[in-house]
Amino acid sequence: MTAPGPATGEMMTPAAAMEHAKRVVARMLGKDAFSRWLGIEVVEISPSRVACAMTVRADMLNGFGVCHGGATFSLADSALAFVSNTHGRVAMSIDNQISYPAPAREGDRLTAVAQEDSQSGRLAFYRVEVKNQDGVLVAVFKGTVYKTKTDHFKAGE
Amino acid sequence: MTAPGPATGEMMTPAAAMEHAKRVVARMLGKDAFSRWLGIEVVEISPSRVACAMTVRADMLNGFGVCHGGATFSLADSALAFVSNTHGRVAMSIDNQISYPAPAREGDRLTAVAQEDSQSGRLAFYRVEVKNQDGVLVAVFKGTVYKTKTDHFKAGE
Amino acid sequence: MTAPGPATGEMMTPAAAMEHAKRVVARMLGKDAFSRWLGIEVVEISPSRVACAMTVRADMLNGFGVCHGGATFSLADSALAFVSNTHGRVAMSIDNQISYPAPAREGDRLTAVAQEDSQSGRLAFYRVEVKNQDGVLVAVFKGTVYKTKTDHFKAGE
Amino acid sequence: MTAPGPATGEMMTPAAAMEHAKRVVARMLGKDAFSRWLGIEVVEISPSRVACAMTVRADMLNGFGVCHGGATFSLADSALAFVSNTHGRVAMSIDNQISYPAPAREGDRLTAVAQEDSQSGRLAFYRVEVKNQDGVLVAVFKGTVYKTKTDHFKAGE
Repeated sequence: MTAPGPATGEMMTPAAAMEHAKRVVARMLGKDAFSRWLGIEVVEISPSRVACAMTVRADMLNGFGVCHGGATFSLADSALAFVSNTHGRVAMSIDNQISYPAPAREGDRLTAVAQEDSQSGRLAFYRVEVKNQDGVLVAVFKGTVYKTKTDHFKAGE
Repeated sequence: MTAPGPATGEMMTPAAAMEHAKRVVARMLGKDAFSRWLGIEVVEISPSRVACAMTVRADMLNGFGVCHGGATFSLADSALAFVSNTHGRVAMSIDNQISYPAPAREGDRLTAVAQEDSQSGRLAFYRVEVKNQDGVLVAVFKGTVYKTKTDHFKAGE
Repeated sequence: MTAPGPATGEMMTPAAAMEHAKRVVARMLGKDAFSRWLGIEVVEISPSRVACAMTVRADMLNGFGVCHGGATFSLADSALAFVSNTHGRVAMSIDNQISYPAPAREGDRLTAVAQEDSQSGRLAFYRVEVKNQDGVLVAVFKGTVYKTKTDHFKAGE
Repeated sequence: MTAPGPATGEMMTPAAAMEHAKRVVARMLGKDAFSRWLGIEVVEISPSRVACAMTVRADMLNGFGVCHGGATFSLADSALAFVSNTHGRVAMSIDNQISYPAPAREGDRLTAVAQEDSQSGRLAFYRVEVKNQDGVLVAVFKGTVYKTKTDHFKAGE
């Protein structure tokens, strides 16, 4: 069983696709200063699913003393960026929508699971769920990305 | 000409409403560690319109070397939080939607203008535009808030 | 095992909750002229999940000869209205977001499955997936509703 | 003063761009059975702004006796389709978000004004406001479209 190779359209084995996905995500996270400041860790990677985790710190709180919506959004958005780029072509977020069913609090361990809903041609659609350590849903996120024709890794890199 | 007083439903003069809006925003920003880390400044306040500004720093960049969507979102979200709370009742963000027409880059000075579209009873709807120093639209944001019955300032505060 | 009774907060058995959900949906659909024009059928009902189906007709097509986004949206929105009202309190849609991963065509049999993501107090959050007869995802919909204090059935009705 | 010609990239005068926009919209509406069933009329056309109007009929009401969200959405979506195609390339809606600040009722005359926020390359972003005959905002809509490379009018048509 094989999957289309990201850079050339050639077929890759599932193991190779997984290896490639990990390489793309490691490279992106290595450059991603904002995700590193937030303490975001990538805890699961596969070609159509990425999970990221982050612990809510005091410097992520808003004027009401709960986690700033922007910090929660950033965790979900990073998970989206990683999963949508695993295929190997540079993908850019176009539209995101987020809802907050429950607040996140200082010390909470949040996990964002980003899962591909659909993809075709230049567009792909994702759902991200953010839950706390007790499994409570604190955010639901929907993201659409545009896939450019640029590969993450060119020959010689 | 008067407006409903935020805490009690009593009428306020426009000058009093403006003074109240400023007091609410100052108090929220004072506690908002995340907005302060981002360097967010409130540059304009009125009861239905708030503008916030932020300069994109190296530690706000993502894996592609441009401003992380979460940082831009956070600026818009803070502007929404401030404008939706100027009326005096604690308002919580429910749903937000953001699109990114153009990237923001290191050194860019971003200004988010949050404007009320409509409000009624327990809900209010806002639009936030984020532009860079050249007037280029880098994000369009739509936010819905739920207004609780809790006042920002109780008797004696 | 029991669930909170919709009208009074009293506990209901699962069988009673199911019966109540069916009664609410039947009553809503009976009055819903637009859903009936669209030929929407309710094919599955439970207190947190409703499925609706519709066949795309020639008079639902747009200027490109495919199903008008508004017709697909309406199917998802009706499924949201039904599922969010099964609990018995009148719930109003506040915000909806829809993406179209693939076109729907004349003759397609579309099924929208609306599932509750989370609910608390006055708000509830839902996801609706719309698929065609071949299981292809043609729309992903996210909906937020505001639950009023009005019951669907008053004493004596 | 000239603008890029839609089909070929050649420059068009503003008058020619306006003429072209009207021709595209007339052709789309002529084929759009769903918009015609809804009684949608195009009341204003320019290359970056289109207004459409519709009167809420009894057969557009939902189970609560107010205008079905899907009917209001369809009006906004048709306005988006028209404005985003005025440039001459076939544009497809990707993501839409709608909020309902106030209900629309039977007999209401609704006008949807679709305005371009931004466009670049393959993507364009729009805002649509829907108001009733008294100027009350009944819906705010945000739409993102993907512009294909296909022209509306080929040589010889």
